[in-house]
Amino acid sequence: MGLKSRDIISTAEMPKEDVDLILEQSDVMLCYLKSGNVPPILRGKILANIFFEPSTRTRLSFSSAMQRLGGSVLGFASVEGTSVKKGESLEDTIRMVDAYSDIIVIRHPDAGSSRIAADVAKNPVISGGDGTNQHPTQGLMDLFTIQKEKGLDDVTVAICGDLKHGRTTKSLIYLLAMYGLGIKLVSPAQLRMPGDVIKDVKKKYGCEIKEYSSMQQVVSDVDVLYVTRIQRERFLNIGEYGKLEGSYRVDKKLLEKAKKGLIVMHPLPRVNEIATEVDSTPFAKYFDHAAYGVPVRMALLSLMLGKV
Amino acid sequence: MGLKSRDIISTAEMPKEDVDLILEQSDVMLCYLKSGNVPPILRGKILANIFFEPSTRTRLSFSSAMQRLGGSVLGFASVEGTSVKKGESLEDTIRMVDAYSDIIVIRHPDAGSSRIAADVAKNPVISGGDGTNQHPTQGLMDLFTIQKEKGLDDVTVAICGDLKHGRTTKSLIYLLAMYGLGIKLVSPAQLRMPGDVIKDVKKKYGCEIKEYSSMQQVVSDVDVLYVTRIQRERFLNIGEYGKLEGSYRVDKKLLEKAKKGLIVMHPLPRVNEIATEVDSTPFAKYFDHAAYGVPVRMALLSLMLGKV
Amino acid sequence: MGLKSRDIISTAEMPKEDVDLILEQSDVMLCYLKSGNVPPILRGKILANIFFEPSTRTRLSFSSAMQRLGGSVLGFASVEGTSVKKGESLEDTIRMVDAYSDIIVIRHPDAGSSRIAADVAKNPVISGGDGTNQHPTQGLMDLFTIQKEKGLDDVTVAICGDLKHGRTTKSLIYLLAMYGLGIKLVSPAQLRMPGDVIKDVKKKYGCEIKEYSSMQQVVSDVDVLYVTRIQRERFLNIGEYGKLEGSYRVDKKLLEKAKKGLIVMHPLPRVNEIATEVDSTPFAKYFDHAAYGVPVRMALLSLMLGKV
Repeated sequence: MGLKSRDIISTAEMPKEDVDLILEQSDVMLCYLKSGNVPPILRGKILANIFFEPSTRTRLSFSSAMQRLGGSVLGFASVEGTSVKKGESLEDTIRMVDAYSDIIVIRHPDAGSSRIAADVAKNPVISGGDGTNQHPTQGLMDLFTIQKEKGLDDVTVAICGDLKHGRTTKSLIYLLAMYGLGIKLVSPAQLRMPGDVIKDVKKKYGCEIKEYSSMQQVVSDVDVLYVTRIQRERFLNIGEYGKLEGSYRVDKKLLEKAKKGLIVMHPLPRVNEIATEVDSTPFAKYFDHAAYGVPVRMALLSLMLGKV
Repeated sequence: MGLKSRDIISTAEMPKEDVDLILEQSDVMLCYLKSGNVPPILRGKILANIFFEPSTRTRLSFSSAMQRLGGSVLGFASVEGTSVKKGESLEDTIRMVDAYSDIIVIRHPDAGSSRIAADVAKNPVISGGDGTNQHPTQGLMDLFTIQKEKGLDDVTVAICGDLKHGRTTKSLIYLLAMYGLGIKLVSPAQLRMPGDVIKDVKKKYGCEIKEYSSMQQVVSDVDVLYVTRIQRERFLNIGEYGKLEGSYRVDKKLLEKAKKGLIVMHPLPRVNEIATEVDSTPFAKYFDHAAYGVPVRMALLSLMLGKV
Repeated sequence: MGLKSRDIISTAEMPKEDVDLILEQSDVMLCYLKSGNVPPILRGKILANIFFEPSTRTRLSFSSAMQRLGGSVLGFASVEGTSVKKGESLEDTIRMVDAYSDIIVIRHPDAGSSRIAADVAKNPVISGGDGTNQHPTQGLMDLFTIQKEKGLDDVTVAICGDLKHGRTTKSLIYLLAMYGLGIKLVSPAQLRMPGDVIKDVKKKYGCEIKEYSSMQQVVSDVDVLYVTRIQRERFLNIGEYGKLEGSYRVDKKLLEKAKKGLIVMHPLPRVNEIATEVDSTPFAKYFDHAAYGVPVRMALLSLMLGKV
């Protein structure tokens, strides 16, 4: 019952009742934030933010969420200047921060590392992204954003970009399927969502998932265009990258064909995937999207620490 | 009316009534600090300290000011480990931290970047230094220090060192002129205060500004010797630097000729510009000067957040 | 009387009544932590954590201790991005942070630097390790761990590993002698505890200190095996290191000969000195040991700030 003392490692293993609870609690937190009057229910509690890999958004929004609720934050933003450099194992590092804090957010380059951390720690652990595996709290704030901006009924989402290496998209697809949203995947052939993820989602939720190779193919049919970055480094052949770039870039021209009410989302940071000319249009929801990260993370921290 | 929800980007554009208010409020904060009993008027508020360029003093004194008033601090001390490294634009980074905090302090290597940040952010923005342009809160704490140590009547200040690249001196000169203090500029020919700054100050405040090339020329006539560092790297010719060094170094010998009651100030860090033998003399006010940064920044944070 | 406004620089100069007080207060703090209800007696106070050398455990456990008691933390985790890089002296850096905070924890690569800091600062200074000299708060948490796990009567401790370069062991040996515990030193010939330290301890406390060259020689006779890391880099000859490694590694085989009730401690991080197979045995106290760092540091902060 509830999320108290549990871990958040992957959306693939979350029961819907947990997600329901998180969405509901996120709404409560959003109200508090809007009122400018957040009750300090986590006063005296400590969040350990341990980032073995760079992050600004995830790290700072968890810090903000904890501080808004009256709690404190400690940790590290990179492994420089830590005992990891001296050869300490992940398990030993986790046991240490576990003793210094009440809840841990971990980002680590290795897929599966968050699970290891959760197994070792006595306190609850939240994955802030583990390699190319999952980024569950990003998926949850994506879902919350869609709910607030479009509702969760009769909505179709196109997930676009590098679906092979991206971890946010792998967390999001499970949640979309869980709530019965329409799912279209748009990516270059060599950057498709891994087959085992698609298979697992279909098996769990019995949904249909169609794949496309350009945004033009879906822009008139979907309610949400969820755009992610395609890193140039993923391509051996730079000419090949150049050819693809146009099919994965959102600009005003593409949006001329957009379905009425379509919103554009992006986990950020963006580089060239969305032209800045889109920023001031009603399509652009990516900055609101980022802001929704705070109430969702406030919800997670309060639920997992048993303070609601 | 007041500073609530406004930005602090440059002293060149500040009305005197704002500065009056800041000085007055700094005095109140200084009293609180001395009493050891500071009211936590910023409890629940979050300061985002975002430093794209190294800093210890500015970053830590803003942290101290925020924490003394009961608030929290998040941010980054360098761009290592941030999304800036992934190619995120300044505007996008600002939109993000704006969503996570209530007020932003930014230091950035580009002149004009603080203005860009202030235009994008919904919350108030304070410049912590933008390139060679301005460092307004340093100027304000300089002025507050002079007021506390010498008063603001009939006081003449010599601003010495690299006035071309230095940003603190460009913030200070406007404030000195605003309060009618005497101004003497002392610098090597190639490191003079830019002509457009001098012209602008004169035009705004109708004051006289004389330029000199060595401290010896002014030490008997001024009440404040404001010393800044001349970086060796500014000189193509190291011999030339050597020749100049003596004219921009404060030691006991120079101070033998000092006007009665003269004080030496420095924005710090110092390297060789002030001999350590001066530290224990009554002339030395540079450490008190640094300490005044906290009440001034407390004043700014509380005024801009509308909590006085 | 008491520790208020005093510094903690070295265990060699601490009177026993101070250590008694710290142990007693640590116990009080441990009770608070266990109850989940720590009184915020340091609310409004600021700890400056200034680390000129890498650390995770010391830095984060002091942060945790300060935050548990309601206080705030500022500082830096490395000299990157600080004025130290611009050539600022240690003294000037200390004067600055002294003005921004109420108590300073400093780690620095130079032996004697903590003493310099304490002499310059008006506020109390705690050494978080200065070069190969001392790490007094580690010694105090070692002693507190021994007291909690074994008591302080009739207990013999073997301090093992690199006793030449290690600083935690130099802090611990004084405290063991102070409380009359048995002391055995185990190290390779070239990594022995410096003669002047042994001489000083013997002179101060009139105790006997025997030296050994392998753990096998002492494991049946001691109550505590205090293990430290031997860094490969200390050896010119890698073959020589290989030969020694076995004599300074704790595994289940070694522990077959252990005295009943023996506990294994380690200041952490460990690399290979303790096999992970030992972690789940009743011998392993190194993780509890790390956790005891928080109440001990809470005790120090509260005593030195005069808030008990």
